[in-house]
Amino acid sequence: MYVAKSPLSDADQKTVSEALQGALVDLVDLSLVAKQVHWNVIGPRFRSVHLQLDEVVDTARQHSDTVAERASTLGVSPDGRAATVAQSSGIGKTPEGWIKDADAIGVLVDALGAVITRFRERIDATGEADPVSQDIFIGITADLEKHHWMFQAENG
Amino acid sequence: MYVAKSPLSDADQKTVSEALQGALVDLVDLSLVAKQVHWNVIGPRFRSVHLQLDEVVDTARQHSDTVAERASTLGVSPDGRAATVAQSSGIGKTPEGWIKDADAIGVLVDALGAVITRFRERIDATGEADPVSQDIFIGITADLEKHHWMFQAENG
Amino acid sequence: MYVAKSPLSDADQKTVSEALQGALVDLVDLSLVAKQVHWNVIGPRFRSVHLQLDEVVDTARQHSDTVAERASTLGVSPDGRAATVAQSSGIGKTPEGWIKDADAIGVLVDALGAVITRFRERIDATGEADPVSQDIFIGITADLEKHHWMFQAENG
Amino acid sequence: MYVAKSPLSDADQKTVSEALQGALVDLVDLSLVAKQVHWNVIGPRFRSVHLQLDEVVDTARQHSDTVAERASTLGVSPDGRAATVAQSSGIGKTPEGWIKDADAIGVLVDALGAVITRFRERIDATGEADPVSQDIFIGITADLEKHHWMFQAENG
Amino acid sequence: MYVAKSPLSDADQKTVSEALQGALVDLVDLSLVAKQVHWNVIGPRFRSVHLQLDEVVDTARQHSDTVAERASTLGVSPDGRAATVAQSSGIGKTPEGWIKDADAIGVLVDALGAVITRFRERIDATGEADPVSQDIFIGITADLEKHHWMFQAENG
Amino acid sequence: MYVAKSPLSDADQKTVSEALQGALVDLVDLSLVAKQVHWNVIGPRFRSVHLQLDEVVDTARQHSDTVAERASTLGVSPDGRAATVAQSSGIGKTPEGWIKDADAIGVLVDALGAVITRFRERIDATGEADPVSQDIFIGITADLEKHHWMFQAENG
Amino acid sequence: MYVAKSPLSDADQKTVSEALQGALVDLVDLSLVAKQVHWNVIGPRFRSVHLQLDEVVDTARQHSDTVAERASTLGVSPDGRAATVAQSSGIGKTPEGWIKDADAIGVLVDALGAVITRFRERIDATGEADPVSQDIFIGITADLEKHHWMFQAENG
Amino acid sequence: MYVAKSPLSDADQKTVSEALQGALVDLVDLSLVAKQVHWNVIGPRFRSVHLQLDEVVDTARQHSDTVAERASTLGVSPDGRAATVAQSSGIGKTPEGWIKDADAIGVLVDALGAVITRFRERIDATGEADPVSQDIFIGITADLEKHHWMFQAENG
Amino acid sequence: MYVAKSPLSDADQKTVSEALQGALVDLVDLSLVAKQVHWNVIGPRFRSVHLQLDEVVDTARQHSDTVAERASTLGVSPDGRAATVAQSSGIGKTPEGWIKDADAIGVLVDALGAVITRFRERIDATGEADPVSQDIFIGITADLEKHHWMFQAENG
Amino acid sequence: MYVAKSPLSDADQKTVSEALQGALVDLVDLSLVAKQVHWNVIGPRFRSVHLQLDEVVDTARQHSDTVAERASTLGVSPDGRAATVAQSSGIGKTPEGWIKDADAIGVLVDALGAVITRFRERIDATGEADPVSQDIFIGITADLEKHHWMFQAENG
Amino acid sequence: MYVAKSPLSDADQKTVSEALQGALVDLVDLSLVAKQVHWNVIGPRFRSVHLQLDEVVDTARQHSDTVAERASTLGVSPDGRAATVAQSSGIGKTPEGWIKDADAIGVLVDALGAVITRFRERIDATGEADPVSQDIFIGITADLEKHHWMFQAENG
Amino acid sequence: MYVAKSPLSDADQKTVSEALQGALVDLVDLSLVAKQVHWNVIGPRFRSVHLQLDEVVDTARQHSDTVAERASTLGVSPDGRAATVAQSSGIGKTPEGWIKDADAIGVLVDALGAVITRFRERIDATGEADPVSQDIFIGITADLEKHHWMFQAENG
Repeated sequence: MYVAKSPLSDADQKTVSEALQGALVDLVDLSLVAKQVHWNVIGPRFRSVHLQLDEVVDTARQHSDTVAERASTLGVSPDGRAATVAQSSGIGKTPEGWIKDADAIGVLVDALGAVITRFRERIDATGEADPVSQDIFIGITADLEKHHWMFQAENG
Repeated sequence: MYVAKSPLSDADQKTVSEALQGALVDLVDLSLVAKQVHWNVIGPRFRSVHLQLDEVVDTARQHSDTVAERASTLGVSPDGRAATVAQSSGIGKTPEGWIKDADAIGVLVDALGAVITRFRERIDATGEADPVSQDIFIGITADLEKHHWMFQAENG
Repeated sequence: MYVAKSPLSDADQKTVSEALQGALVDLVDLSLVAKQVHWNVIGPRFRSVHLQLDEVVDTARQHSDTVAERASTLGVSPDGRAATVAQSSGIGKTPEGWIKDADAIGVLVDALGAVITRFRERIDATGEADPVSQDIFIGITADLEKHHWMFQAENG
Repeated sequence: MYVAKSPLSDADQKTVSEALQGALVDLVDLSLVAKQVHWNVIGPRFRSVHLQLDEVVDTARQHSDTVAERASTLGVSPDGRAATVAQSSGIGKTPEGWIKDADAIGVLVDALGAVITRFRERIDATGEADPVSQDIFIGITADLEKHHWMFQAENG
Repeated sequence: MYVAKSPLSDADQKTVSEALQGALVDLVDLSLVAKQVHWNVIGPRFRSVHLQLDEVVDTARQHSDTVAERASTLGVSPDGRAATVAQSSGIGKTPEGWIKDADAIGVLVDALGAVITRFRERIDATGEADPVSQDIFIGITADLEKHHWMFQAENG
Repeated sequence: MYVAKSPLSDADQKTVSEALQGALVDLVDLSLVAKQVHWNVIGPRFRSVHLQLDEVVDTARQHSDTVAERASTLGVSPDGRAATVAQSSGIGKTPEGWIKDADAIGVLVDALGAVITRFRERIDATGEADPVSQDIFIGITADLEKHHWMFQAENG
Repeated sequence: MYVAKSPLSDADQKTVSEALQGALVDLVDLSLVAKQVHWNVIGPRFRSVHLQLDEVVDTARQHSDTVAERASTLGVSPDGRAATVAQSSGIGKTPEGWIKDADAIGVLVDALGAVITRFRERIDATGEADPVSQDIFIGITADLEKHHWMFQAENG
Repeated sequence: MYVAKSPLSDADQKTVSEALQGALVDLVDLSLVAKQVHWNVIGPRFRSVHLQLDEVVDTARQHSDTVAERASTLGVSPDGRAATVAQSSGIGKTPEGWIKDADAIGVLVDALGAVITRFRERIDATGEADPVSQDIFIGITADLEKHHWMFQAENG
Repeated sequence: MYVAKSPLSDADQKTVSEALQGALVDLVDLSLVAKQVHWNVIGPRFRSVHLQLDEVVDTARQHSDTVAERASTLGVSPDGRAATVAQSSGIGKTPEGWIKDADAIGVLVDALGAVITRFRERIDATGEADPVSQDIFIGITADLEKHHWMFQAENG
Repeated sequence: MYVAKSPLSDADQKTVSEALQGALVDLVDLSLVAKQVHWNVIGPRFRSVHLQLDEVVDTARQHSDTVAERASTLGVSPDGRAATVAQSSGIGKTPEGWIKDADAIGVLVDALGAVITRFRERIDATGEADPVSQDIFIGITADLEKHHWMFQAENG
Repeated sequence: MYVAKSPLSDADQKTVSEALQGALVDLVDLSLVAKQVHWNVIGPRFRSVHLQLDEVVDTARQHSDTVAERASTLGVSPDGRAATVAQSSGIGKTPEGWIKDADAIGVLVDALGAVITRFRERIDATGEADPVSQDIFIGITADLEKHHWMFQAENG
Repeated sequence: MYVAKSPLSDADQKTVSEALQGALVDLVDLSLVAKQVHWNVIGPRFRSVHLQLDEVVDTARQHSDTVAERASTLGVSPDGRAATVAQSSGIGKTPEGWIKDADAIGVLVDALGAVITRFRERIDATGEADPVSQDIFIGITADLEKHHWMFQAENG
């Protein structure tokens, strides 16, 4: 049976694993939610929101890869399958069908807000256990919070 | 209520809509499955399969966008949310945990095979209703079948 | 006298020639209309619409070249001169002077709608006569319909 | 009613407006004429002339955009619609149908010659009224005269 | 024994296989013929024809790869070896030694004409059997016919 | 003491020096004002204005460098320090704090308007003294006026 | 009134805000000082120092944008206006007029030294309050200290 | 009759001509053999060998062009037609049909070995006659021997 | 004597200096070991391992430069000479001669494992003394651990 | 006999021709002088001056082409042959042999100074006769004067 | 006095120096002759010859730099000044004024022929004395002879 | 046991192997020495020497790879490990600690001089045994001697 050598103690390994798995699910779902809105948004700000959402998708996809490979690096099998994402994501239910631009922005403000709260907790939880993983969470949070600001500013 | 003007009759619209929605779900799931295996594959062929899978991911992501926007173009709201994908994908269940390279290739051969069968049906179903959508399905099928060949050849 | 060798029968040649010449005029006019609105649009959505229109211009210019050279390829002299375009375009009259952003979007929705209707007819007319030309019409129609969706969504 | 603030006096504004509108029409027509010949040229020099004409098209398209946006900048609505171009262009009638390479070069020598004469007049007319617009006309004339030389040299 | 899974019935598989193998041989030979003339052309139009022929080589090489891999994709071993090409190509014998530019153009007009005729037949033959392969043939034919026009126009 | 050799007479040198120093201050301040609004803008048009302002920043930074180095070229030490900019800029006071998008556009319309008026005077002042510097002012004015138009059009 | 949702407590928010605003002013001023010396440096090392200073400008501009947008992200309006910079920068007065290359290096050694001291304090102050902002300060300090070394080494 | 001026004596010309013609045939055939295996290889190392073979194709195509144009440069008509290649290549018969990865590597080890032996003889034969052609052969041999090593190492 | 101004206390300076010098030696040696195996690996996975090792070389070279310049930045002379590396590297002896692919992977797993252990100690040692250097060590460790995972997965 | 149609009167043509021919000779010689010093400079500033001189070469080569083609455009045959350059250049004799870096800078200060004086006269001479050519001279003078400043600053 | 350390004996140094100085003059003159014809060519093949000549210019400029820097490398001061070129070039006198395309090709055939003869002598002369310089001459000769072929083929 | 097939006789193999192994060690050490000085240089010319040294590093790294792979190509295992380099390099001991810029240049002049002497011997030794390896040595020597000139010129 394959066991990669982890530089962490068992307890730290457990802490960090949970944080990474949770982060993976949140980021994969964020990429799917942002694409869903990207396709369904309507209204005067259609083009602007449509383009902005693809930047969120890029951020989410890139970071989900980093987080999943960090889990593998620590010897923990990551799980980013659709059913897992559907069941354990920290993002609330996305409405189906066409969505007006102002509502689209609201969906993203909420989704990003929920994910950021959980990432802040992961930063706190992993500093002792693994500063390398913590540093990855810090960098992702910076990006997510910047997107959060931009959507809030649009409803400002 | 927003209604984009479709160039199709109602019956054709219904046929094409179902084909596009099905294709969207299959392609989003294919991208998630290929990423899942990309992160969990182990064995002597790790690096080769790891890289090859990202090419499948690129294909699946690019075409899922095309298919979803084609649905919007015809006035049909696409649905690519995680729960929808988990429930209606044409791809069988992907095993959890580490996966040996030969098994990884088998997972992709099966997943691509299942998706291709459904795309061939979509090509047949839509030729009369909308040759523009059919042409998109034909182009996607060419790419999927090429990936299918390569994974089969590796187990040859 | 120069006569390029056509792979088509005379009847097919006539059918396809008319379709190509009509497509050329529509696309050249679409590029001029989109530029006209690009320069004259005003209003809060100025920048967004201004940029979006240049993407329509790129599409129209690129495809007009493809269509004209396809005519030459079949031994038919294409005619894209200003007077010909002014007389036989399928697009209605574009208003002169400054144009508010919502009206600008309306102009494009109408222009694209008119051109798409004629392209759908060309797809039907040429499938028997020349599948190569038909395939070109199908590809162009996909692009035009996508632009059409985006402008409609902005007024959604 | 929208009125952009012009830095020019009314009289200067009128002088410059006419020059810019005339330049716009000439350049749009030059781009259409060059494309028409690009598609219809035949003869031993086909490839060379075909490629050279696309460089004229690039020049004409780029400068027509500059000139039209300069008009908008001065608060004057530019008009580059097909009918306007067909009616007020300074370029003579372009022959229809296939055109031998030497004749093609002659068409361009004449078209560029006619446009250059009018641009030289615009340089003279606008120096006092608006040195910024004049500088744009000077730069365009340099490019047009260079193309003019090259076509003349080919018939040398 | 390696057998890739084909999505086609046996009869369709046979039809498409023959079309793909024939297309492969024609395209490899076209690349060799165009290179041969690229190296041996002389005369006033040397440089123009020399450059133009490398564009034919690029087209032929790129499409021969597509066609051969399409055969592999359908579970059919492609054969592009020199002896096979020499024996079954649809292009007539290319003269040896230096070749005057006008003759060079004639060689290409004939070679392209012969290949196009066979591709048109392949389009007809495969539409029912495999629309994916047919779509590939349609795209290749468009490119070949465009090159054919250009060489004909040079002798116009 | 370092004295670069100027091609100008003392009187011309003085005229041109003042124009260049004034232009430098205006352009540095324009870059700071545009960045200030870039960071503080809020409202539905946030993203569009945010992006547009960075184009103003690019223009202002690039031209401030040209103008400062032109001064050095003529043997005149340029002064672009913060205190100098704060004291002698031609742009009025920028409001502190968050700024609504429509107000943001108004700030830019005013700032660009003020700077353009002063550049027009510099064009007039330097034509006799140094046509090289004048030509630089003309080019900068063209860019500034184009930005001015775009912001005005957004409030049109 | 616009209030972006901050993930920080009020006390932490205050601490971090002050650090970010101070950093913004220092970096904007650093970019202006480096440009000032870039234009005014003379002496045998002119070219080397002139080029080196533009790298400092790039660093300062890029990081000032990051810091200002981080403030906005936390719901704090950043202030980078010329007067604010002139009044609160941590960098001492830059001499006016031409500056010998060795002196230019001394100005940068001093300016960077002053800014680095303040950034070190910001790293200490913000670790508890907001590790995301702290991480940004750490990354900026690394770049500033590297520039500091290079200028010191030149006077070594 | 066209005779390019050769810088070589008749005897040297003959020696070098034979070497160049032989090299041309070997390199064209190497490109065809490598493509044939590229399409037909199967087995666990499929992807790696498939990609590696395209690097051989690139090497062979690029050098075949250099060698053929070197012949033309010396006034000797090169012959790279399919029949000539089939008859005079130094590479043994390539098996038809699918080929296992280890066998594929063996085919390339043999093909490269045969070609390298002949190139070594060409280096010896042409040093006196034409050091320019010899230098070309030396450069090609370096590339071929490097490919040879890599395929041998894979069977090591 | 040259002394760059360090922002650290003497005790912290000593701690960080030793960590940086140790890191430099480890990274230079890692680059040499990876190149040694890159050149000497043989076996079926030759190409895959050969390419993978150059990615390790890139990582090691880039980070060794960062670490050495960080030492210089703190006023500490870095030592990356061959004899120093040979004497103080944390990597065990690399076998001479050809090395089978599975063994090659084992060499890298061991080498990376040894270096990672030491980097983890450096992260712990420097957090108090210099968070800037610590952040550099954290980033490097992330990259090294990712490479470590990939080589372990290949032997999985 | 070939006579391109000039837009200028005979008197203006003569004035502008002399200016263009003189400019051509000066610029070709400047490129040769700068290369000569580029190859022969020695001393501590070798590398800096060596690189700087290639920027002068680029400027001189690019503008010599513009000036010569402007002459052709006006129907005047340009003369940039070595003997013509040697006889009529406005640049004094360049010393032979190695040249110390400070002397190298002096050579360029003198050469650029001499050329600039003549370009200033050409600007004055051609404004009436041909504003298009004058605008070209103005742009070249701006570049030459900037180089002049930089070399002077190095001796400052 | 500056004396770079040469790896050659005095006699070899003398032999190689003369070859390099002669090569430098020939190549600088070739670049000037090719530009002269580039500007003055007229006739139906104008565009083709005009473009082809710039490729000769690129070759000649690039190699003249290599040759001059090789001389400096051996401690020999290169001389590429206009007067030296005018006096010692191996290329015959270039006619003044407009030149018909066929004559232009003749000028290049002669110029290249003359230069090639001298380069062949330099290859013979330097093989013993300095194989490094000889290798440079061989590479340059390959390029010159290829250009020679192309111009001859155009008159074939 | 792995034995790649060498095209050389045993005696030639031995000669060439020793030359390649010696070259490898020299080039690896040159890259380490140049980096060591790159990090430790101080003084007014710091930046210029710092940048110049990275060009030496690039040259040495690129050629060390070529030489090592050439050894593998001939069936000889290359040895570039730190201890081997430390023991058998042809470069003298590099001083530890900070190094003044003039001394840094001296170190490089000496290091390059020593390596060049050995490469010249390798060129002589291998011409008979393997002209392919000799050609590689000639090309490397050309690059090393050019760097040698530049450092000497800086002390000229």
